[in-house]
Amino acid sequence: VGITIRDVAEAAGVSPATVSRALRGMPNVNASTRARIKSAAARLDYVASPSASRLASGRTGSIAVITPYISRWYFSTVLSGVESVLQAAGMDLLLLCLDDKADSREVPSAAQRLRRRVDGALIIAMPPTDPQVREVLDLGMPTSLIGVTTEGVPGVAIDDTQAARLATQHLVNLGHERIGLIGGSSVEAQFTAESDRERGYRQVLRDNGIALDASLMSSGYFTISGGERAMTNLLTLSQPPTAVFAMSDEMAFGALRSLSLHGLVPGRDVSIVGIDGHDVSEHLNLTTVAQPVGQLGRLAAESLLLQIQASSEDPIPGVLRVPTQLQVRGSTGPRSTPRS
Amino acid sequence: VGITIRDVAEAAGVSPATVSRALRGMPNVNASTRARIKSAAARLDYVASPSASRLASGRTGSIAVITPYISRWYFSTVLSGVESVLQAAGMDLLLLCLDDKADSREVPSAAQRLRRRVDGALIIAMPPTDPQVREVLDLGMPTSLIGVTTEGVPGVAIDDTQAARLATQHLVNLGHERIGLIGGSSVEAQFTAESDRERGYRQVLRDNGIALDASLMSSGYFTISGGERAMTNLLTLSQPPTAVFAMSDEMAFGALRSLSLHGLVPGRDVSIVGIDGHDVSEHLNLTTVAQPVGQLGRLAAESLLLQIQASSEDPIPGVLRVPTQLQVRGSTGPRSTPRS
Repeated sequence: VGITIRDVAEAAGVSPATVSRALRGMPNVNASTRARIKSAAARLDYVASPSASRLASGRTGSIAVITPYISRWYFSTVLSGVESVLQAAGMDLLLLCLDDKADSREVPSAAQRLRRRVDGALIIAMPPTDPQVREVLDLGMPTSLIGVTTEGVPGVAIDDTQAARLATQHLVNLGHERIGLIGGSSVEAQFTAESDRERGYRQVLRDNGIALDASLMSSGYFTISGGERAMTNLLTLSQPPTAVFAMSDEMAFGALRSLSLHGLVPGRDVSIVGIDGHDVSEHLNLTTVAQPVGQLGRLAAESLLLQIQASSEDPIPGVLRVPTQLQVRGSTGPRSTPRS
Repeated sequence: VGITIRDVAEAAGVSPATVSRALRGMPNVNASTRARIKSAAARLDYVASPSASRLASGRTGSIAVITPYISRWYFSTVLSGVESVLQAAGMDLLLLCLDDKADSREVPSAAQRLRRRVDGALIIAMPPTDPQVREVLDLGMPTSLIGVTTEGVPGVAIDDTQAARLATQHLVNLGHERIGLIGGSSVEAQFTAESDRERGYRQVLRDNGIALDASLMSSGYFTISGGERAMTNLLTLSQPPTAVFAMSDEMAFGALRSLSLHGLVPGRDVSIVGIDGHDVSEHLNLTTVAQPVGQLGRLAAESLLLQIQASSEDPIPGVLRVPTQLQVRGSTGPRSTPRS
């Protein structure tokens, strides 16, 4: 049958539960006991198997990360931050991508797949109203949201309204009054990030006595090509904007491309500002409100591990807000005199 | 204790092994039996637990993906392809990032973490000479490499020599003779991709009677900023290149940035070609040799699942080569007459 956790416990003269805690790097095991246990485990060539560990600790040693995208910059950067913390804690990372088609597939739902398999879940920028996300939240296991917030669920996020205010106010300070917005879908804002960023944009216009012009708001669906189409639409207006706030850097990349195709120079003819701090932004000379994306992932993972270790009487943590920062580059500049 | 696989087997009138095969979507279960089993499992609210499944099938239902980076475009795009196949097959994806520091950390090695936990492993673009990778290969479980190749291990990769030949020949065809190379590290090529791409570059120069000039070869370390520094170095030569082949699109992005900072126009003053087909390349108007990166991930995952299902007498599959394609854009153009 092979070496079990009981063999290690016997060799080290401790209980199986202590072996489990020690090998997982959990607290409440003193250093010399931990060293003795590690040495016994190494001598016996013991590796915790999920089932054996579960017997001893009631835990699986695994955390699920649920994300709607893997290859998009924001999501892969969060995932990278999460992974670094889980690896250092000796936890396994179970990756689940939930796209629109997941519902219709003949595969078990996310919640079905997670039950009894993981000790907790991290959900990256998915709307808590999504039925599959709701089902995971209903499992009642330790869970943390990243990038979105909802009542009663711990999470880590930026202040999206404030980030949008920083971006829009920067354009106002440069003398712009016709300020376009490139956002997500015009039909419905699925993410709190989206509605919060639009709110920040509206607030700054109102605070500066600039009338909202709905024709200056265009949908870019958070993709590069969507941003390009949205900017092109804005340029066809009889009175195009002199500056545009794009809700994400990737949409801003598309907007820069559209300007270039029209022979317009960013920062001189039309100013563009994004949100993200995408690693390509510096190379495209894009002004952006940078968010610490890797840190969002790290903080969420650390806070989830604390939740898992906490006793059931401890209060559930709230939402941790991390600050953003305006990075001014060449894509924004003072409003030029109208071209004749 | 809850519902076990035996309860489902009894309800459906089949063996536990058949339940396991049916719920995993494996072959050799006919459609009506599979439907009866699924219906019984749903009625009993049964979800396969890793330990129970392992008892019945000897398998864990999990696949490990081992990668040196998560947030870089190539790696996250491969991962996305892998995940889509594993999810459709109902397999869990255990994600492990092995960076340089992994060796020195007080955490178990990758091989220790995978033993008895997964049915197989996919390794993304890591040198098979890496000690941690070697240890995983030595476990003898079904394994597939992505983007690199080594004797005796199945894998999916492009023909890197051919991809580099396509890129370099394109520059030769445009009349260029002083053709720079931006590669990885000058000290040692850790990846077969790197040495193969340099070989393709050298071959095309030789085939066209162009002498190799070592001063035209610069290290970009496969990052955007490394590519920018490498291009800047090339521009400081007394006789700078009129065209540059960068071994990756991200290094080419950096090279474009360096040109722009020097007031040079890509495709007119200096031509740049990359390899990848990165999703930002189109927007930067970069000529590139595109590789189907998501498809590499999907094919590797599919081939690994076949290996796992195969009997031990079946031959181990070899390396699957997927084709690349030159995409000509504005960053390359005919050699201009020397600037005076």
